[in-house]
Amino acid sequence: MINNIPQNMLNIVKKTLFSSAKTASLKQVAAFSGFYRSALRFQSSYSIPETQKGIVFYHHNDELKYETIKVPQPKSNELLVKVLYSGVCHTDYHVYKGDWTEIKYKFDPYLIGGHEGAGIVVGIGSQVNGWKVGDLAGIKWLQSSCQTCEHCETGEESSCSDAELSGATHNGSFQQYATTDAVQAAKLTPPEELPIWGKEKFNEYMAKVSPILCGGLTVYKALKASNLKPNQWCLITGCSGGLGSLATQYAKAMGYRVIGIDSGDDKKQFFKSLGGEVFIDFKKTKDIVKEIQEATKGGPHAVINLATSSESISLSTKYTRTNGTIVLVGLPAGAVVKSDVFDHVIKSLKIVGSYVGNRADTREALEFFNRGLVKSEIKTVGLSQLSEVFKDMEAGKIVGRVVLDTSL
Amino acid sequence: MINNIPQNMLNIVKKTLFSSAKTASLKQVAAFSGFYRSALRFQSSYSIPETQKGIVFYHHNDELKYETIKVPQPKSNELLVKVLYSGVCHTDYHVYKGDWTEIKYKFDPYLIGGHEGAGIVVGIGSQVNGWKVGDLAGIKWLQSSCQTCEHCETGEESSCSDAELSGATHNGSFQQYATTDAVQAAKLTPPEELPIWGKEKFNEYMAKVSPILCGGLTVYKALKASNLKPNQWCLITGCSGGLGSLATQYAKAMGYRVIGIDSGDDKKQFFKSLGGEVFIDFKKTKDIVKEIQEATKGGPHAVINLATSSESISLSTKYTRTNGTIVLVGLPAGAVVKSDVFDHVIKSLKIVGSYVGNRADTREALEFFNRGLVKSEIKTVGLSQLSEVFKDMEAGKIVGRVVLDTSL
Amino acid sequence: MINNIPQNMLNIVKKTLFSSAKTASLKQVAAFSGFYRSALRFQSSYSIPETQKGIVFYHHNDELKYETIKVPQPKSNELLVKVLYSGVCHTDYHVYKGDWTEIKYKFDPYLIGGHEGAGIVVGIGSQVNGWKVGDLAGIKWLQSSCQTCEHCETGEESSCSDAELSGATHNGSFQQYATTDAVQAAKLTPPEELPIWGKEKFNEYMAKVSPILCGGLTVYKALKASNLKPNQWCLITGCSGGLGSLATQYAKAMGYRVIGIDSGDDKKQFFKSLGGEVFIDFKKTKDIVKEIQEATKGGPHAVINLATSSESISLSTKYTRTNGTIVLVGLPAGAVVKSDVFDHVIKSLKIVGSYVGNRADTREALEFFNRGLVKSEIKTVGLSQLSEVFKDMEAGKIVGRVVLDTSL
Amino acid sequence: MINNIPQNMLNIVKKTLFSSAKTASLKQVAAFSGFYRSALRFQSSYSIPETQKGIVFYHHNDELKYETIKVPQPKSNELLVKVLYSGVCHTDYHVYKGDWTEIKYKFDPYLIGGHEGAGIVVGIGSQVNGWKVGDLAGIKWLQSSCQTCEHCETGEESSCSDAELSGATHNGSFQQYATTDAVQAAKLTPPEELPIWGKEKFNEYMAKVSPILCGGLTVYKALKASNLKPNQWCLITGCSGGLGSLATQYAKAMGYRVIGIDSGDDKKQFFKSLGGEVFIDFKKTKDIVKEIQEATKGGPHAVINLATSSESISLSTKYTRTNGTIVLVGLPAGAVVKSDVFDHVIKSLKIVGSYVGNRADTREALEFFNRGLVKSEIKTVGLSQLSEVFKDMEAGKIVGRVVLDTSL
Repeated sequence: MINNIPQNMLNIVKKTLFSSAKTASLKQVAAFSGFYRSALRFQSSYSIPETQKGIVFYHHNDELKYETIKVPQPKSNELLVKVLYSGVCHTDYHVYKGDWTEIKYKFDPYLIGGHEGAGIVVGIGSQVNGWKVGDLAGIKWLQSSCQTCEHCETGEESSCSDAELSGATHNGSFQQYATTDAVQAAKLTPPEELPIWGKEKFNEYMAKVSPILCGGLTVYKALKASNLKPNQWCLITGCSGGLGSLATQYAKAMGYRVIGIDSGDDKKQFFKSLGGEVFIDFKKTKDIVKEIQEATKGGPHAVINLATSSESISLSTKYTRTNGTIVLVGLPAGAVVKSDVFDHVIKSLKIVGSYVGNRADTREALEFFNRGLVKSEIKTVGLSQLSEVFKDMEAGKIVGRVVLDTSL
Repeated sequence: MINNIPQNMLNIVKKTLFSSAKTASLKQVAAFSGFYRSALRFQSSYSIPETQKGIVFYHHNDELKYETIKVPQPKSNELLVKVLYSGVCHTDYHVYKGDWTEIKYKFDPYLIGGHEGAGIVVGIGSQVNGWKVGDLAGIKWLQSSCQTCEHCETGEESSCSDAELSGATHNGSFQQYATTDAVQAAKLTPPEELPIWGKEKFNEYMAKVSPILCGGLTVYKALKASNLKPNQWCLITGCSGGLGSLATQYAKAMGYRVIGIDSGDDKKQFFKSLGGEVFIDFKKTKDIVKEIQEATKGGPHAVINLATSSESISLSTKYTRTNGTIVLVGLPAGAVVKSDVFDHVIKSLKIVGSYVGNRADTREALEFFNRGLVKSEIKTVGLSQLSEVFKDMEAGKIVGRVVLDTSL
Repeated sequence: MINNIPQNMLNIVKKTLFSSAKTASLKQVAAFSGFYRSALRFQSSYSIPETQKGIVFYHHNDELKYETIKVPQPKSNELLVKVLYSGVCHTDYHVYKGDWTEIKYKFDPYLIGGHEGAGIVVGIGSQVNGWKVGDLAGIKWLQSSCQTCEHCETGEESSCSDAELSGATHNGSFQQYATTDAVQAAKLTPPEELPIWGKEKFNEYMAKVSPILCGGLTVYKALKASNLKPNQWCLITGCSGGLGSLATQYAKAMGYRVIGIDSGDDKKQFFKSLGGEVFIDFKKTKDIVKEIQEATKGGPHAVINLATSSESISLSTKYTRTNGTIVLVGLPAGAVVKSDVFDHVIKSLKIVGSYVGNRADTREALEFFNRGLVKSEIKTVGLSQLSEVFKDMEAGKIVGRVVLDTSL
Repeated sequence: MINNIPQNMLNIVKKTLFSSAKTASLKQVAAFSGFYRSALRFQSSYSIPETQKGIVFYHHNDELKYETIKVPQPKSNELLVKVLYSGVCHTDYHVYKGDWTEIKYKFDPYLIGGHEGAGIVVGIGSQVNGWKVGDLAGIKWLQSSCQTCEHCETGEESSCSDAELSGATHNGSFQQYATTDAVQAAKLTPPEELPIWGKEKFNEYMAKVSPILCGGLTVYKALKASNLKPNQWCLITGCSGGLGSLATQYAKAMGYRVIGIDSGDDKKQFFKSLGGEVFIDFKKTKDIVKEIQEATKGGPHAVINLATSSESISLSTKYTRTNGTIVLVGLPAGAVVKSDVFDHVIKSLKIVGSYVGNRADTREALEFFNRGLVKSEIKTVGLSQLSEVFKDMEAGKIVGRVVLDTSL
């Protein structure tokens, strides 16, 4: 292996990958199975600074501050992750606004949001198994769980009532160094054939994988909850948005036929490019129920409700196929799903809530991404600009996912 | 076998079982494998009258008339059943009132209700397989289905859009002779050890089995739809009513722990006598959600909503266990289930509509009854008194199930 | 619609599609929704000859005779199908040899094999629903079932103990006109966009769809029985054979990752062209168990055993992943699967037998084909040449599937 | 609460429950929610001796020695359990003999067997969550697992390849004080209404619960693996043995109909007393397949193979119902299950290996026991007599389960 690595490449990697890179001998590099791993791990240890940059706020709706703060210490069960990129999710915005009163937010003394963090493990707690310095780790919304309740016992840890949530009850990934529970942290394993020669390819992988850690995982879990079989029709509302474009790709890769609802010709074209089969423009259709049922010969077997208005969700009970499944997946504050009992019974509908995925779901969602079956469309801006991103989000201006580069 | 049958018993059977009984030789009787079957089938054929008594109406809400009408002819796919007993279901009342506009009722020229009929097969269409004269048959709500659609293909024939419904789109069991599709008709097979010496025991079996054909089947199917595992908590609303008492017994026999909601000490006692474990008196409790969750250490794993008000159903989304299943099973005109999307998602709830059972469900529901694990509490009155029964139903005066004797 | 059909095309269709075509008016054609359907059905009835050609034998292993025989009459529940093409399956050869003593073959007086027939409905029994003359129908191994047993009730009709089998207990598709039970007959629905202008495209569709009716259906059912989830590893033994190539395509379309076992570089290339991901050449590998487990990081989640030797099947218990599923699908006379109980328990393996599919499986298998996701590789020869085909089969010379053209 | 506890009872408890009991004030007792918990936990800490008694051996088949050994120290993830009782399982005997070469036994320097230990938590590692001193804990075969592999992720930790096994790779419960991983340790929660006044009732509970920790758990898991539905037939081979009697009771409690195979009238009577419905005496029957299929009208829907000879297991493929499930559950050294592929496919059989249960299975199996639905028949002898117990086991003389009292 070592023979195949041009010396100049080695130097590039050493110099560009980490700001703190030191000289590594060829021998050190050769000790690892591939250049990629080597590149990431050619340091036997990392020099961790005492302070870092992060975005903090002290109360909901407070000004977001880009400040110099302390680098946290990992507890015995935790990893310390050098965060390279962090996606921005609507959930971060809801947390910032304090929309969900059900959550016990932890301001200690401030709160740091973010739960789509992708980075490198640079520190490890004393009780951690299965991780080593240099591994690539993802920080997820589900940060830790009790591991002893009836839900944790059976791999439903997202239902654990003692779960900690990154960016809400535990400081998240909108900082350069973050702690996260080792059991729940996601293993990032770029495909072996990925030619990570130099910083760019590596950075591209890390930036693009970050939205998978929440957005991708969430829609993948929702698709699993739909209980669809290959060749069945899956309807996705908001099919060309940030989550919708991920859902369309996952559904396609899972063997389902995808029908999407959204509006506009560019969105139609985008949806088709992702493998979508039938596009319903809700602004153009005269009878949306009829149009959907005709296109799918009886209605979709399942609906993934990414559009989260009460009307949109309740409408899905009308066009779903008899014996079909309606998946609720977002967390819109105040929305209510209404269903006529008569129809619900006669059609034997199932309305199923799908929260975030567990560790197996995470691993699987990442595998689809690593295999190239799901791509994420991102726009990268600096961590310091989060405040502007939230403003765009509020104004509905975001297309695809925004990812923050923690070095900027 | 024949030696064991006292002559006087034979005579009793011949005289009392059927009004049209003729002399049967011992040889005829001996031709059958047991006295019970013999008794039912000692006639090689039945003399079928041209006219009969039945309850008819010409429009919804019309006066119900106890009239002399023609005995129908079975089509090539049908059985002609001499109905002995027919249960009265709330659905019959809804049909009579015309509450459900979704159904295309068939007045030809009049409609005859009833879909819990138990009787003897006395005529068989030319294309019928698997039935013979003298068999015992049950008439169900799902009277026939197309057998070719995607639902019929997989045993979900109750979802067939071309299904015929006894007592609504096809004349039902509120008459002395009724036709029914042979494929959907239920095989009634009294337990072999049942000593059917004489009219009484036989009549008791036939009368008591009739409510199983809709009420029992419906709650059994709902329990299957709940996806419970043995030892899990099943909550039944209206646990001591007609359907509730059947549901409690089925749930117990299926290995579930039963918690019921109803009101009054007599209902509590009745519920406990059926195997119920925890009774919640909704008129006495101060915090019903808390009380339920404490008794079940986290909420029931599933809820069978037999109480059909919108409030009662929506309340069930509050106390159900995380990852639990809420089953909708009745067909209340106008009721709506509302669920907060946030809770629905966070708790990963499933709200599942359960319509009537298929043929396998019917066979299974009857097996529980035949094994003595489920008993039906009935009050028997004459067919001619249906009008009074509906009045009692309207007034909420019915306890248990009312069964009509077609000979009265 | 009618305006779009060139007159010369109409003439071509009329002349070439059916030997017995008569003049059809434009009006007749216009009565149908599309040219394709019209073309097939522009005759209000078909003139059915009294005699036809077929391949018969009087005892197992007797000479196969290409003879003039009577055209059968459909019973009240049957269709009469003008067979255009019929695939040849190994099962036909086993039947001919009498290898399976478990089956009660019906020689009345002779037996006609064949159970992959594709043709046009030209006659309909009096009790048939849902079919009309001119429809396209497929004849399958499972020819009819009782519709009343516990298996038929739940869509497991292939387990019915009274099932009739095409080409074994009921004369099959190696003749120009065959009868088949209407409930079990497969609906062939070429994709609407398929431009069936003239004989060739239509014939191509009908010839290529025929192996789906048994080969495709069987491997599709086996894949369903494997209980795989998208992204999991599916190993197929004999991956480049007739069944294997279909299985590889179905597995790919269902979202699974496919690893195949076979031998030879051309087979490897063929497998890869169908979407296979990892090819194991069993003649080249030194440690097949190790190689499979390394390629799949722990072993495949399921194995579809198309290679049917006892050794090959028993070997699959060694390399399957812990908690994995081993599917048995062929019917090798005399083969035995052996499994060490200790391993079987410790690894929590499932060894699952998968027989032929039901009606829903058939519809689904055809949908994959109609969508173009599964293609069949065929070689077409005349019906009269069946005897040579069997010789080639015996000698292991068949590549892909052989389809018989009944007009030759 | 405290008012209800007679002073003399308090004294009895304090004196008899633990050899090291000290004086406890009424206030201390009152601090707990019930007398039972109080009794167990009225000491704020336990004085742990430095040495203890245990049964050790240095090599497989070595003499078993009842020796004074060191009390082990719990690691940070472990509990220290004062073992009161330990069941003796056939697995202990296999371990002692070294029958299973697949396991990497840990002699450090000696090995201590036992994996059905019931005791009191007297020490807790620094990283343990969810346990406190005084809790009641069970020691199981599955002692710990990695918590990070694909199996651990989804609650299939018994499939973890890094799992530690009590009494085989980690010193087990044949000693007075044992360490065990806190995550996998079973929570023992005697029913609240259980009147644990004094030593006897408490000891009875602890002794009788011990065989549930492996024997009960194992058969319960096997029954879950059978995928039976309530009212279906479950056949249990060796139905009146130690495991069989537990399996019969669990199957009954889960709503299944139980048919058992064993031999002898006393075993028949015992089986019937446990809720078994049909008993097949394999020494008396002339055609066991026929007899089983007639009694169950087609064969049992599932078979739990507790008799572990190759012949017995292979026979079960013959009498199982079409579409049925055959569960392999024991770990007989060298046994092989053979199945004719033709039958296996035609009957769509499933042969399923079931290893030990996970944490959820453990909790559930204990709930059935705590509810009184499953009772264990035990004989109690002193720990020092293990050697004799093994001799009886070898001679096939054990009836029910033997439980060791560690104080003797």
